[in-house]
Parts: sequence; C-alpha cells; structure tokens
Amino acid sequence: MCNVMSTNKLDNIAIIGLGLLGGSVGLAVNRALSGVKRFGYSHRSVTRIKALQAGAIDVDCGTLAEAVSNARLVILASPLGTFADIMREMADYLPDGCVVTDVGSTKVKPVQWARKYLPDRVVFVGSHPMAGSEQRGVEFARADLFDDANCILTPAGTSARVKLATKLLREFWQTLGMLVSTMTPAQHDRILSRISHLPHVLAMSLVNMCNENEMLLCGKGFLDTTRIASGPPGLWRDILGCNAGNITAAIDRYIAELERVKKTLNTDTDSGMERLCKLLERAQGKRNELIKNKLKRKELPI
Amino acid sequence: MCNVMSTNKLDNIAIIGLGLLGGSVGLAVNRALSGVKRFGYSHRSVTRIKALQAGAIDVDCGTLAEAVSNARLVILASPLGTFADIMREMADYLPDGCVVTDVGSTKVKPVQWARKYLPDRVVFVGSHPMAGSEQRGVEFARADLFDDANCILTPAGTSARVKLATKLLREFWQTLGMLVSTMTPAQHDRILSRISHLPHVLAMSLVNMCNENEMLLCGKGFLDTTRIASGPPGLWRDILGCNAGNITAAIDRYIAELERVKKTLNTDTDSGMERLCKLLERAQGKRNELIKNKLKRKELPI
Repeated sequence: MCNVMSTNKLDNIAIIGLGLLGGSVGLAVNRALSGVKRFGYSHRSVTRIKALQAGAIDVDCGTLAEAVSNARLVILASPLGTFADIMREMADYLPDGCVVTDVGSTKVKPVQWARKYLPDRVVFVGSHPMAGSEQRGVEFARADLFDDANCILTPAGTSARVKLATKLLREFWQTLGMLVSTMTPAQHDRILSRISHLPHVLAMSLVNMCNENEMLLCGKGFLDTTRIASGPPGLWRDILGCNAGNITAAIDRYIAELERVKKTLNTDTDSGMERLCKLLERAQGKRNELIKNKLKRKELPI
Repeated sequence: MCNVMSTNKLDNIAIIGLGLLGGSVGLAVNRALSGVKRFGYSHRSVTRIKALQAGAIDVDCGTLAEAVSNARLVILASPLGTFADIMREMADYLPDGCVVTDVGSTKVKPVQWARKYLPDRVVFVGSHPMAGSEQRGVEFARADLFDDANCILTPAGTSARVKLATKLLREFWQTLGMLVSTMTPAQHDRILSRISHLPHVLAMSLVNMCNENEMLLCGKGFLDTTRIASGPPGLWRDILGCNAGNITAAIDRYIAELERVKKTLNTDTDSGMERLCKLLERAQGKRNELIKNKLKRKELPI
C-alpha cells in the first residue's frame, strides 16, 4: 500500500515529454510551487537543452530511469501514442507511492495501459488540462498556459489511494491556476468526443472538401471554423484513434443533425424556413449563453 | 440605353439599409471618395439618426424615393429578404443610367428580383463584399471594414452596360480598399455554399447537438469553430434559404467526407490509422497553404 502526499510535500516531479504542454507544466510549477525540483525527460537531447534554457526544467535527464526514480509525481506529457511504451519502460524505476498522471486528450486508454504496465506500488490517475493551441514545441510554452482553463481528472475506481492521488492532483492543477472537475474516464471520453474530437473532424473535413482556389476567397468565418485543422496530424491520429467508438457515435449524431437542416432547406414552404430559423435561433442562444457563462467563470477575458 | 459613369464622376450615392455593412460603406466612402454625397435610408428613423451622428451618411432620407431619386449608384445593404420589396418600391424613382448593386451573400436571387422589378433604364450588378462579423448595427460600422478583404462582383450577362457598371463597381470597391474578383452569380452561389454557407450550417449544428453542461467544459477550439453560430438568425435564414439547392449539395458532399473519416476509425488495423493520418495531413497542409496565401495577399495581419 502506498502513501500519497499533498502538494506542500511535493519535492521532486518528473515531466516526461517537453513540448508545449510539458514545457508549460514546468514553467507553471516554477511560478507556483517553490522548492519543487523538476526532472525533465525527452528522447531528444536538443529538446531537453531547449527546455533547460527556457527554465522549464531544473534537471536534464538522459534516461527515463533518471527522471522518475526520485519522483513523487510523474507527468506524462508526450504524445498519447507513446504512453504504453513509456509506462513499460519506466515501471521498474518508479518509487513506492509515486503518483503517475498524464495530460492526454483521451482517458480510457491510458488507464488500460497503466493497469497493464505500471506496478501496484504506484497509483495512476489521468488528468486532462484543457489548454494548448495548434502550436507545438517548448518554444511556445508559457507559465500562464493553464490559467483559468478547465482540467478534468478521471480517477478509475474509488479506492483510498486513488482518492488520495486525485486530491493531490486537484491541488496540483489548482495551484497551477486551473478549474478542476472530476469524472470517470468513460464519461470524459464520451463528452470530449463531442466538444473536442468531433470539432477537429469537422474542421479537417471542411478543409478537405474545399478546392484550394475557392478557399482563397473565404472570409474570417471560414478561417476560425477551420483553425484547429492546422493541429499536428500525428497527435490527432492518436487522439481520434484512442476514442474511435465515441467519435463514430458523435459523427452519426452530427449527420442526423445535418439531415434535419437539409430537410428544412428542401421544404419549399414558409414552414421549412420557420424551422430553419428556429435551429439558427437555438444555436445562437446556446452559444451566447455559453460565452456568458465562460465570462462568468473568468475563462475568457472580458 | 443608359450611360454609366466612373467613380471620379460619382456625385450622389444612396445607401439603403444602415446596419454594420451599410454604415461601413458610408464611412469608407467618406474616407476614400471626397465630394460624394451619401443619401441614407432605413425604415427606422432611429437608425438613420444614429447613422447621421456616426458620420456614415450626409442626408437622412425618410423615404426610398428621396434617397434614390438623384443617385448615380444605389447600394442595397439591407437584409437579403427585403431586396424584392425595396426594388419594387424604388423602381419608379431611379434616375436613368443609375447603377444598382447589393451587398447580399447570395447572388442568383437578387438578379432574378432585379429582372422582375427594376426598369430597363437602370442596370443591376451584384456585389459581395466579404467583410463583416457576427455583430450587427451601425454602432459597429468602421471605415476600414473592407480593407484588404475580398469583394466578388457577379455581372449577369455581357452587354456593354453590364460591363460598364461592373467597371464602375470594380473601381468603387477597390477605392474602398477591397480585392475585387468577378464571376457569374451561379458560380458565386456554388462556391460560397461551400466556403461560407456550409460553415455556418456546421457551426450551428455542432452547437445544437451539444448539451449545455458539456459545452461548459470546452476549450478555445470549440469556441472558434462555433463563433459564426452567434450570427443573426433572421439574416442567415434568408441567406441559407436563397441558396438552398447548393447548400443541400454541399451538405451531401460533406456527409460523404464524414463517412470517409468514420471508415478509417472503424478499420481496426494500422491501415485505418494511416489513412486517417493522411486525411489530417492533407487538411493541415491545405490550411497552412491557405494562411500563407492570405498573408501574401495581405488579407491577414502578419
């Protein structure tokens, strides 16, 4: 049985993967938690050097073993597709009672990998800090990346050690400036399939169906609607692949919504146009309400 | 046969509809074309007074007759759904040789209405200045709204008078800072159904399918993807209704694209993930190229 500690006892943390998210975790920890030593690992030495120079880590670790062997908290911030291998490789070096988390965009698969590859001496609870951009690399890392953004914790099970680890992670992300909520990994993946993964599929599909010359005539609306399609393909292949079932269901639900719009357009009477107007009004109302609530929660600048 | 003049001979213009676009036309004309007198009409006196106070018009006209009877150029900037009535009502008061244009987002219907309601003494050529935002009203009007944005002219036919009117309008919008291109009304409506009207349907449908509480957890990507869903419902009902055939075809084409994505997600082998990655790469590449070209054309700030 492991003992999990609170953030005020955090001494050493390991950040695995030093891109935009990993680098920003390092900078935010430095800003908010004095006295915490940040061990950083990336498989590329040039990335580790950049992270060190940017002040995102304290110790440049050439191996996973070196990075994690004294860590109270290990944060996987590498692409989702690397988690299984990293867990397998670091398993033997993790100290007793260590909390392992990740910052991946899907949460069911990481739990499965953790169950398979991590020893019982440690406890895994997934995190999804919902911050980032279509940019990549530690050069875009910022200490304030997580300020006032949502973070979803996804404890699997209700054991005392999972609860303690969840408490530690809640404190950790709150200290970094985030609004923390909790749900099961399955709930997370179902909800995110609609509010994050589907939007990516939609943006990608819109760009793919449009002709290059025609797109040149587009206005700001098209550019905003498709912004996320500029995100890194490999990363998104992993995210979409790890949540394929939910995303397929979300696409089906979305197609039904589009069929509804088509029906109003093909009803050559006033009633078709009335129903179309109702759909437009509903979307406008819901989105305006969303913006209002985001402002209230201070997630958006006023 | 009418005689159409060039912008340096423009003296009086009439702006019908004094919202964001009509108001901005007024302000931009004032900035770029000295000596042009701007007659403004709105069916609401409070709007006309606001436009006058904002410096968007020179003369507050209480009737359409008053606004157009001395105009060399008449610009319809009211909602698409009002064009037919306005054309019918102003027809008798338009001076010989007057050029009539509009700033509506679909171009086939306005030509049909112009053929039906406008006299042969005048010439109609549609304009689509692709500027604006989800905001409404003359209070958001700006003299620089059209700077470096696209404007599509849609002459119907190739008669000498249509060519002259097109030339005048090309000069007019260029003087206001726009990048002008020309195509037929049918071409315009087909292309815009994909790069403007479909994106609106997509944003609306995404918001409509999502649950309010779930949406609260969304990140910036979702907000950007759905921004245009906050646009005015009545305006968009008219736009979508006036281009129903093309939009229906665009939705069908889009659903086929989504089915393609679903197929890659449901292929439980590496080949499915490889094809998904290709789709993601293609979209990323096309969008990055689009941004590069928009920067080159100075349509975006560097």
